[in-house]
Order: sequence, then C-alpha cells, then structure tokens
Amino acid sequence: MYFKMSRIDLLNMITIASKAISSNSPLPSLLGIKFDVKNDHIELTASDSDISIKTMKSKNDEGVFEVYEEGSIVINKNYINDIIRKIDSDVVEIEIIDGSLTKISGNTSEFKINGIKSNEYPLIDFNKPAKSFTISSTLLKNIINQTYFATSSQETRPALTGINFSCDGSSMTCIATDSYRLSRKVVEINNDLKFNITIPAKSLLEVARLLDKEENVEVAITDKKAQFICNNTIIQTRLIDGSYPDTSRFIPNNYDYSLVMNIKDLVHAIDRQSFIKNENDLFCILKLSMNENEIVISSRSQEIGSSKENLYFDSYEGKPLELSFSGKYVSDALKGLNGEKVKIQFCGEMKPFILTSLDDETTLQLVLPVRTFS
Amino acid sequence: MYFKMSRIDLLNMITIASKAISSNSPLPSLLGIKFDVKNDHIELTASDSDISIKTMKSKNDEGVFEVYEEGSIVINKNYINDIIRKIDSDVVEIEIIDGSLTKISGNTSEFKINGIKSNEYPLIDFNKPAKSFTISSTLLKNIINQTYFATSSQETRPALTGINFSCDGSSMTCIATDSYRLSRKVVEINNDLKFNITIPAKSLLEVARLLDKEENVEVAITDKKAQFICNNTIIQTRLIDGSYPDTSRFIPNNYDYSLVMNIKDLVHAIDRQSFIKNENDLFCILKLSMNENEIVISSRSQEIGSSKENLYFDSYEGKPLELSFSGKYVSDALKGLNGEKVKIQFCGEMKPFILTSLDDETTLQLVLPVRTFS
Repeated sequence: MYFKMSRIDLLNMITIASKAISSNSPLPSLLGIKFDVKNDHIELTASDSDISIKTMKSKNDEGVFEVYEEGSIVINKNYINDIIRKIDSDVVEIEIIDGSLTKISGNTSEFKINGIKSNEYPLIDFNKPAKSFTISSTLLKNIINQTYFATSSQETRPALTGINFSCDGSSMTCIATDSYRLSRKVVEINNDLKFNITIPAKSLLEVARLLDKEENVEVAITDKKAQFICNNTIIQTRLIDGSYPDTSRFIPNNYDYSLVMNIKDLVHAIDRQSFIKNENDLFCILKLSMNENEIVISSRSQEIGSSKENLYFDSYEGKPLELSFSGKYVSDALKGLNGEKVKIQFCGEMKPFILTSLDDETTLQLVLPVRTFS
Repeated sequence: MYFKMSRIDLLNMITIASKAISSNSPLPSLLGIKFDVKNDHIELTASDSDISIKTMKSKNDEGVFEVYEEGSIVINKNYINDIIRKIDSDVVEIEIIDGSLTKISGNTSEFKINGIKSNEYPLIDFNKPAKSFTISSTLLKNIINQTYFATSSQETRPALTGINFSCDGSSMTCIATDSYRLSRKVVEINNDLKFNITIPAKSLLEVARLLDKEENVEVAITDKKAQFICNNTIIQTRLIDGSYPDTSRFIPNNYDYSLVMNIKDLVHAIDRQSFIKNENDLFCILKLSMNENEIVISSRSQEIGSSKENLYFDSYEGKPLELSFSGKYVSDALKGLNGEKVKIQFCGEMKPFILTSLDDETTLQLVLPVRTFS
C-alpha cells in the first residue's frame, strides 16, 4: 500500500471513521482504522461491533489522491489521528514499508507506526438491505434530538435504551421512553413500508453528529441492522432485539387542565429553581401550582431552603391544580420541542401530562408527575 | 441584615470570593461566603484556610447599593452563586428573615436559604503587614505564568510546591523547581527590601486568575503570610514553612553548544512528536540530534513505532550533540518564555541545558536531560 492524499481530506475521513471506535474495545484491531487502498479509491472502516462506519474517497472526487500501490492495513486511531491532525504539510504520503510497519510522511516529518495486518480485522458485511427510504438530514437529526433524551440508560430493559421506529404505510412513528417519560415524533417518509425496529440511542447520536449539512440520507433496514447512507459514508448499526412495548395506551386522550406559556421562560424558571437538590437526589423536584390568575413554580428542601417564582403565562384553563415533577425531565421535554409556545395538558395530580408545541404538531412529550409528601 | 444591590456587582463579588473556596473543606462554614453588611459598605469573605479573600464595596462606589439593616451571615457558595447568576432581575434584595434563614429576592422570584450564623465562621486576620511593594498586575501575572509549571506537585518536599521570592535590595528573584527543571525570573521592584519567602503555587494561580486588567497590586509580606491588595480586594495566603534550596549552583555558567530557533516551531514540532507515549510513561521522551547543518528531533518506542523531523533553525554553534529530554518539560519551558526566538545552551549530553528568549533577558528556563538506552 502506497498512496498520496490531501491532508485535510484524509483527516475528514479519519474523523468520520473514528466515531465508530470505542476506546475500551477488547480487540486491539478494533482500536484501529482499516485502510483499504485500490487503484481508483480508498476506503476507511472502523467499528465497535455495535456501530460500523465505512467512508470512501474515489479518484474522481476533488483533491489530491494518487495511488502508487494497492494494499490494506489497520492503524491505531489515536496515532493516525494525532499525526494527520498535527503534521505540517498539505499532502501526506502513507506507505507500508515492512510487514505492517507503515510510514507516514509530509514535508520534513516522518512517522513510522506499527500497524496491524488487515486480515486480523473482523469481516463486516456492508451489503445494503433491500428495504429503504430517503429522509433529509435535518429531519433525521430532529427526530433523534427530540427523542433520544427520553431513552433509558439502564440495561435492565434493553429495548428502552433505543429509539423505536415503526411504519405501516408512509407515516413513521419514532418513540423513546424510559417509562417515566416519553417522546414521540411522527413523520412522513417517501415510501410505503412496513417495519418495527429499535435502534440503539448511542448509534443514533453518532449518526446525528455525523450529519453536519443539509443533504439526503438513505435509510436501509432489515430485521438485524440499519444503514444510514450519505455521500460517501455508510453508518451501519445493529438493532436491539426483542419487542418494543406498546406505548399508545400511556398517552391520555382527554385533558381537564391546559396551560400555554413561553417555552424559554419555563426552561429558565426551571433552571433557576433547580439549585435545591439534596445530595442523594438525582433530580430536583419542582412543584407547579396553577389557577387562572397565577402560575407558581416552587421547590423546597428541609436542609437547604425553599424558592418560588411567579410565571408569566398566556392562558390557563381548568380548575386549580398542583403537581410535582422532575425539573430535569420537564426541561428536557421542553428543549425537545420546536417553536416558541408550549401547551401543557394535564389530567390530574398523579396522571401523566403532555407537552406539545403550538407551532409543531408532529412532536409530543409526556412526563409522569412524582408524588411528594409535603 | 437587609440590603439591596445591583445583581451584576454582587455576582462579581461572589465570583471573586469563591476563588478561595475549596469544595472539599471539612468545615461547613468554609463552604460558604461570609456577608458583612455595614451602613456604608459590604464585605464578602471566603477562605480555604490556605488562601483567604476579602472583597468590599462601599456606598460611594458606582451601582445600586442600599442598606436597610446591618448584619452578617454565611451562605453556601454554590447556592448563592447559582441564585445570583440565574435570577432574572437587575437588582436583588437579601434579608435575614428568621435566625439564619435568608431571603434572596428579585423580580418575581424568591429564594429562602438556610445560612450559617457568622459567629461560626473562623476569625481571619486581614491586618496588613508593614513590609510591602507595588507591582503591575501584568508583571505579577508574568512572574506566575512563566514559573509556576516548574513547581512540584509532590508533597514530599513542601518547599518545592511553591514559588520562591527573594529580595535583597530592589531586585527580586522568583524561582520554581521540581528538581528536574527550573524557572527563574528576575524583576525590579519599587522598594529596597530584604525577604526570602515561598508562596504556594496554588495560591499564586488564584491571584493570577483574579488579576484581569492592567492595574497596580500592592504586595505586603511577613514571615507567615503574603497579601495581594488590588482595588477593593485582599487576597491573603499562608507561606510555605522551611527554607528553599539554594538553586544557584544548578545553573551552569559556561556552555559549549548553542542553538537559536523559532519558539513556536519547536513547540509545534514537540507536539507532533509527542504522540509516541507508552501507557506507563508520564511524558514522551524526545531526542535532539544537532550539528551545524541539521537539527533533527525524533522519538521512538518499541511498541508503537518511531518518528523524526528536520527542524528549521537560525544557528547552531558547537560540535555535534545528541541528547534526550521530556517533551513536556521543554514545551512548558518554551511556553514560559516571551518573544519569538529561543536560545538553547547546552553543556553536554547529561548536563542541564538552559532556554532563554532573545527578546527578554529576565527569564531563564532550565531542563535536565534524561538518559536513554537506544
């Protein structure tokens, strides 16, 4: 293997591939990036076995890229990343000089790194599944960013650590829940498909991070894996086994109380009130006391003290109501809504309440109140 | 205690005082800031017993400040900082309403915090020592930033964890060393004084952080403490007991080899070469191979690989020389020099070498080479 390439192009490819690498992988080869160089293109592959990324550059693409000898090698991601990031040269040459010893050179610098032979790298099947649809990167990122925070971080119920995508026709429902709160976004796709899959939230966050500009993403799925194909990059993730719980029955249909107010005002008020947190509490518990004249948010702790704040609001409908909730959950839910105004609909003191944006009907956030004894 | 004050002024005072607080203090009152309110001024005091800060605002200073009732209270730094930072109001009122329960209010928000009575706060003597000199904040920050990195982080030789300031006349010598490297800066002060004190590096870093604009700082010292007085703030630190080693004999007077090159070029080259670091190494060991025609910096590890780079340089005088050193130590030393060009003077393969800036004769950096077997 011997090729010459624009430093910045190579760095971009390394940055993309690196997202798949987990620093605590037990397999040394999975700490590396596999370089495959053919006469007309170069491919970089990386994987942590949950998520795998392949990114390609062809001779026809823009930028310096010349191949002197085909070949392949695996090079530790940290070393290659450090070298290509810091090397003081616009073009770099990479050459296998002896077995797996690889020379990287540019300008007056020269690095020799012990690589790993590519036959020690696991075989990864990047074949494209037949079932697929196309979605804009912005919409895909919105789906992920407006729901992932509601996934569970506990491995006791694996299905809840992912986002569920279900489709029967051209309307796709995306749901995340940790059983204390739920996020749902419904979007139209450009294809009539039937599927019900759960993708690990961790993989989807990497997908969201890799989509930096407005472009189309092809999503291809089987029962075992999902692929996100965009430009010259394929991000492939395993799915979570097991069925996803039916969440539709959690979402109430009738509401007796309804509050409309500014999203940012409520986020800031929650932030201000959230300083009262006992050492053992994960989250700060806040109380909302509502009637037609006054909405008060408050917080109390025996040890630290108390706080309260009158909120500006647009409208409140229903009898007076008091309920308590995790400040973090409601703050997350509000940040997961687009638009300026939130409508919060309640069914009672201990019933789940839902948050929707007045400007965007596709997204629904649900939060379960908590019981307090005060 | 009951007063009204501009939020931003109070936040500034809290930010200054907070620098003295250590989050793992065993004494609950030392996790707080002491508020002392008199009819014509307010004082905030904080301490971690090594470093103590008192900052003051008087009625004559600019900005809203009105006192309704004198008094004092200690309030947990995290709570008061969070509240004053986030409260949505230009002016805040603080009032002791019941024993040590303190109400903080502004606009539509109201917080009640359990404080600690001020008689439970340790007595701190802020009396000003008689011996003092004045120095510009920029010069004082330079002294600290150009030397502190050479102090030791090991408590086995406490004196080495501080910066030593010695003066006999009007020339003050500031020295830091961890016995593998040494930084020395010599400056003129505006007073004829005789002293030899060692100030903890940690305290000096806080002093450097608090000096944000060009202004004069009064430094007052006794055998036990040092005070830095600037505007309405006093930063007081204990000194390190015990005598500081005589370091003058470490610094060679004659050199047989001398290299002049660009400071930034060498810092970047060291950064590029430093990726080769075995897991157990704290620092990357680099080798410099020098003769009149060529300066090569290189690095090698059995496990990872090797690297080398030809350096651009202005001049080299002396016979060919090879020596090895910690990349981090030399990089730190270079960053501790002002100006564009460094002159590095060597006495031999295993003798300390010194780095000075061609543009600034007040600062000297010394590094001990390391022995390598290759």
